[in-house]
Amino acid sequence: MTYCVGLKIDSGLVFMSDTRTNAGIDSISTFRKMYSWEKPGERAIVLLAAGNLATTQAVVSLLDERSKAPSERTQTILGTPSMYQTARLVGRTVKEVIAESAPVGERADAFRASFILGGQIKGSKPRLFMIYPEGNFIESTEDTPFFQIGETKYGKPIIVRAYEAGMTFAETAKLLMVSFDSTIKSNLSVGLPLDLLFYARDTYSVTYRKRIRGDDPYYREISDGWSDALKSAFKRLPDFKE
Amino acid sequence: MTYCVGLKIDSGLVFMSDTRTNAGIDSISTFRKMYSWEKPGERAIVLLAAGNLATTQAVVSLLDERSKAPSERTQTILGTPSMYQTARLVGRTVKEVIAESAPVGERADAFRASFILGGQIKGSKPRLFMIYPEGNFIESTEDTPFFQIGETKYGKPIIVRAYEAGMTFAETAKLLMVSFDSTIKSNLSVGLPLDLLFYARDTYSVTYRKRIRGDDPYYREISDGWSDALKSAFKRLPDFKE
Repeated sequence: MTYCVGLKIDSGLVFMSDTRTNAGIDSISTFRKMYSWEKPGERAIVLLAAGNLATTQAVVSLLDERSKAPSERTQTILGTPSMYQTARLVGRTVKEVIAESAPVGERADAFRASFILGGQIKGSKPRLFMIYPEGNFIESTEDTPFFQIGETKYGKPIIVRAYEAGMTFAETAKLLMVSFDSTIKSNLSVGLPLDLLFYARDTYSVTYRKRIRGDDPYYREISDGWSDALKSAFKRLPDFKE
Repeated sequence: MTYCVGLKIDSGLVFMSDTRTNAGIDSISTFRKMYSWEKPGERAIVLLAAGNLATTQAVVSLLDERSKAPSERTQTILGTPSMYQTARLVGRTVKEVIAESAPVGERADAFRASFILGGQIKGSKPRLFMIYPEGNFIESTEDTPFFQIGETKYGKPIIVRAYEAGMTFAETAKLLMVSFDSTIKSNLSVGLPLDLLFYARDTYSVTYRKRIRGDDPYYREISDGWSDALKSAFKRLPDFKE
C-alpha cells in the first residue's frame, strides 16, 4: 500500500509520502511516490501517487514526456494556465492510462491509482487537489484543508485533532511525522524512508525537501517521544468508574 | 459499518461494541452487536458481530433457538464442552447462514460477517476467538491479546501502544473509550451508544455491563480530555528543524 498526505496551511503547502510498495507481502520495494515540477518564479507543482505502481509511473512518465516535448507545450504540466487545468490534465492522463491497461469490458480495479496534486501558478493562490482513478477531482477548502491517499485511517485521528491553518511548517512537519509514525507502527504496507516537501506560498519554487530515513534523529525522537507522550497522556486521564 | 473490540487481560475479558448500522449513509439505525449467554457458575459467553446485519442476526437467532431446544442440547451454545467447540459451533453457523443467503455460484461478499467470541467454561481458562465469514477462526495469544472487527484502523494505534496484560478493568475500559472515540471522530459509520462488558475470570457470569450514551459524563470526560491531552502532548514534542 502507500500513505501520502498533502496539507494546506496559511504559509503554504506541506506534503509527505512513504516509499513502500508491495505486490504481496514478500515482494516489497522502495519507490518514490512524490514528484515535483518547477518553473522558478512562475510555478511549482507537487504530485503524490498511491495505487498501482505501473499506473502511477505511466502517469508521471506521460506528464514528464509531455513536459519535454516543446511542440505539445499547451498540454504539458509546465504549460497549464492554472492549477485547475493542471488537475484536469492529471485526471485525463490517469483515465487514459487506466483505460489502456484494462482490457475492454473487464474490471479495471487492479489498475487504479489516486493522486494528490498541489502547487501554485503565478496569478493565483496555492491550491490542493485530490484526483480519483476516474479522472475527476476535488479541491481542498477551509473545512477540508488536507487530503490523504492510500492507507489513510491510522494516521487520520491526530491530523483531525491537531491541525490548525496557522501552523508553521515546522509544526506541520511534526504533525505529519506523528501521523506517519502511527501508520507505520500499525501497518506493514507503509514504510520508511519518508519524503517531506514544503512549498512556501508565493515563492514559485520548492522551499524545502528532505528524505527521512529510519535512523533520522528527529524521526526517532518523534517516534519514541510520541509513544511515551501518548502513554502518559493516557495514564493521566481518569479511569472508568463502574 | 461497525467497530467491536474484544480484549484479554490477566483479570478477565473486556468487550466493547458500537451500535450503528447503515445501509448507505441515509439509512442509519441502532442495533445491539453484543450478545451474551450465561449458565451461572458454569459458563459465560460473549459474542460481538460485525458485517451484514441479516447474517449476524440470523446467526444469533440460530444460536439462541438452539439454546432453547432441549432435544438438541449437544449443539447449543450453552451445551458445548469447551470454548473451542463453541467457536466451531459459531463458525459452522456463520457458514450455514452465508451459504443459505448466497445463490449457488454467485459471490457471497455482501452477506459476510465476522465475530469476536470470548468467554469461559468451567475447567479451562477464559478464551478469546475471532471467527471469519468462512467459518474458520483464530484464538488470541499473549502476543495478540485483542481482536478488532469492523472499522478497526482508526482505533488501533492507541491499543497497540497502551495495552498491558496487567491492566485493571477500569484502565481497559478507559483504553477502549479512547479507541472508540478516535474511531467515532473519524468515521461516520461508527456511532454511539456503546456497549461495554467485563467478564472477571473464574466468575462464570457477566461481571459488569453498561450501555454508554452520548451524554454519559465519563465518555464526555474522556472524549474531551483525550483531545486536549493529545493536543498538549503533541505541542510538547519538539518541532521539526530544517
